[in-house]
Amino acid sequence: MRATLIHGPRDIRLEEVPDPTIQRPTDAVVRVVASCVCGSDLWPYRGVRPTERPRRIGHEFVGVVEEVGADVRTLRPGQFVVAPFTVSDGTCVHCRNGFPTSCEHGSGWGGDDAEGVFTDAGQGEYVRVPLADGTLVAMREHPDADLLPGVLSLTDVMGTGHHAAVSAGVRPGSTVAVVGDGAVGLCAVIAAHRLGAERVIALSRHASRQALARECGATDVVEERGDEGAAAVRDLLGGVGADHVLECVGTKESMQQALDTARPGGQVGFVGVPAGGPELPVRQLFATNVGVRGGMAPVRAYIEELADEVWSGAIRPGKVFDLVLGLDDVAEAYAAMDERRAIKSMLLP
Amino acid sequence: MRATLIHGPRDIRLEEVPDPTIQRPTDAVVRVVASCVCGSDLWPYRGVRPTERPRRIGHEFVGVVEEVGADVRTLRPGQFVVAPFTVSDGTCVHCRNGFPTSCEHGSGWGGDDAEGVFTDAGQGEYVRVPLADGTLVAMREHPDADLLPGVLSLTDVMGTGHHAAVSAGVRPGSTVAVVGDGAVGLCAVIAAHRLGAERVIALSRHASRQALARECGATDVVEERGDEGAAAVRDLLGGVGADHVLECVGTKESMQQALDTARPGGQVGFVGVPAGGPELPVRQLFATNVGVRGGMAPVRAYIEELADEVWSGAIRPGKVFDLVLGLDDVAEAYAAMDERRAIKSMLLP
Repeated sequence: MRATLIHGPRDIRLEEVPDPTIQRPTDAVVRVVASCVCGSDLWPYRGVRPTERPRRIGHEFVGVVEEVGADVRTLRPGQFVVAPFTVSDGTCVHCRNGFPTSCEHGSGWGGDDAEGVFTDAGQGEYVRVPLADGTLVAMREHPDADLLPGVLSLTDVMGTGHHAAVSAGVRPGSTVAVVGDGAVGLCAVIAAHRLGAERVIALSRHASRQALARECGATDVVEERGDEGAAAVRDLLGGVGADHVLECVGTKESMQQALDTARPGGQVGFVGVPAGGPELPVRQLFATNVGVRGGMAPVRAYIEELADEVWSGAIRPGKVFDLVLGLDDVAEAYAAMDERRAIKSMLLP
Repeated sequence: MRATLIHGPRDIRLEEVPDPTIQRPTDAVVRVVASCVCGSDLWPYRGVRPTERPRRIGHEFVGVVEEVGADVRTLRPGQFVVAPFTVSDGTCVHCRNGFPTSCEHGSGWGGDDAEGVFTDAGQGEYVRVPLADGTLVAMREHPDADLLPGVLSLTDVMGTGHHAAVSAGVRPGSTVAVVGDGAVGLCAVIAAHRLGAERVIALSRHASRQALARECGATDVVEERGDEGAAAVRDLLGGVGADHVLECVGTKESMQQALDTARPGGQVGFVGVPAGGPELPVRQLFATNVGVRGGMAPVRAYIEELADEVWSGAIRPGKVFDLVLGLDDVAEAYAAMDERRAIKSMLLP
């Protein structure tokens, strides 16, 4: 089959690799129907994180179950499934606590699983899925072309935006600011709106993304950044910072923006993968009582709830995909996101 | 009158200072019945924070209203009042949000108030209290000698321990670890027990404090620190970290201990005044989904609720005072805490 490998900075190649097969009785093999490029894939692409040797890449995919192992009980060939960006057993204490990202038998895509068996990554034609019962979520039916992007967003960005909102404690009637206007930031806007926030302020400088943020539920847009951005949010909220701030970037600057934009006693929900090792200023947190909560989103725990609303059309996170390419063009899918020509690229094998 | 000044490291003096008087119509003058030394007073005492010029010190006191300004409406001379460790108006948006520590007209003891008028500190005989209606809480009657320490604890340590538990989200049935066996840590044990935690694990190496922690509601004691301490907590909890960890010290090591002791998706409530500028490791927070929330405790917002239980005897935070001295011996009150001969010193003028 064909699958994507990263060889180094800005070196993405589609190559022939072995077809996956069932290796363990709890495995499934899934034929990928759609996959995509994540903002976090850009860190190795840009060389911010080193790539020591060529490796498979991609952790967001949906597809059709081709084959299941003897111990798989909840899935059958032919079902359309969503794969979250981590493998989890669904039964350990951390999964039961709602944090499958800390599963005792968890692993990621494109590396060895908990038993040391190689697992394919998402940007390819087929994937061996370990712990299939715990990891995969079957959809009610095969989504049509219109619905496919929204269903694909459940693998990561929609659940991640939702995690930012949940971690920040967004409630009906509260005020929210969203730092970051990428795919996750836009999904965070959708999530905050969905959870009943009265005001959702998107911090964005790009006209097209501002428009998309408003489509997603933003009530206001702030173009300023830094102290001016925080002041502009306060101006919109009667002189007080936001109850909840959703940090969807992962840089030191964006985290500082989030902390500065929250009101005393407010809460930052953060899901931006920390890049460059920013640390949190504990004295500021102490003085302001602003809380910080978030991290790698336990999207597996959110898929069912969010899928219902994607299928019903109540939320439309598929609009974050503004570029659709064939797998042959995977290098361009990365380049377009890197150069901010695309918010998020979808790949069709 | 007599009041305490700090002149520099280990240089605490009781001196003659001017008697306070009503300066603003919203002021009250309170005769101090009891005050105490805070763990955070030890930072300047030890020279960890510089003392640039001699200054009044002490931010925990209870007493009797002597006189009120013309605009004071809820207090009258003769009432017994509790003063929280910050001044607040009780009416601004931050006070209404439950964070009087961020009051728009707030200030502290022993410095200038929001209008630039000097405010006495707590370790003295009398105090001018700005914004008296917002700041002070009248008790139902004058406490007797047995109840006085518990009422005094409402000025800071009991509310601070409670804030750690609230910030960590302690709920009925949850598991809690408390880092720090000082007065705040012991009050955090009381608070966690009061909020219904099923397990309350005190991290303590001192036999007398371990015994006190158990009296306060600790179900278990762990003597180990660092990785061994976190492992010991997990051993007590079936291999999983604590749902909630209350950080009551304020050093880099204690915060790291707290983060390492929480389970994935758990929450640290921190109230230790950050000493030495530790920053929070955002990558660890991201990987574990452990949240961090807390800071300067908004004790004013908690006094009524906690006072009811102090008066009823449901909680007995007064037991953290294990040394009672006259104001003449204030230097010894500091030395005893500094040398860990006392958990917390109470001062009677």
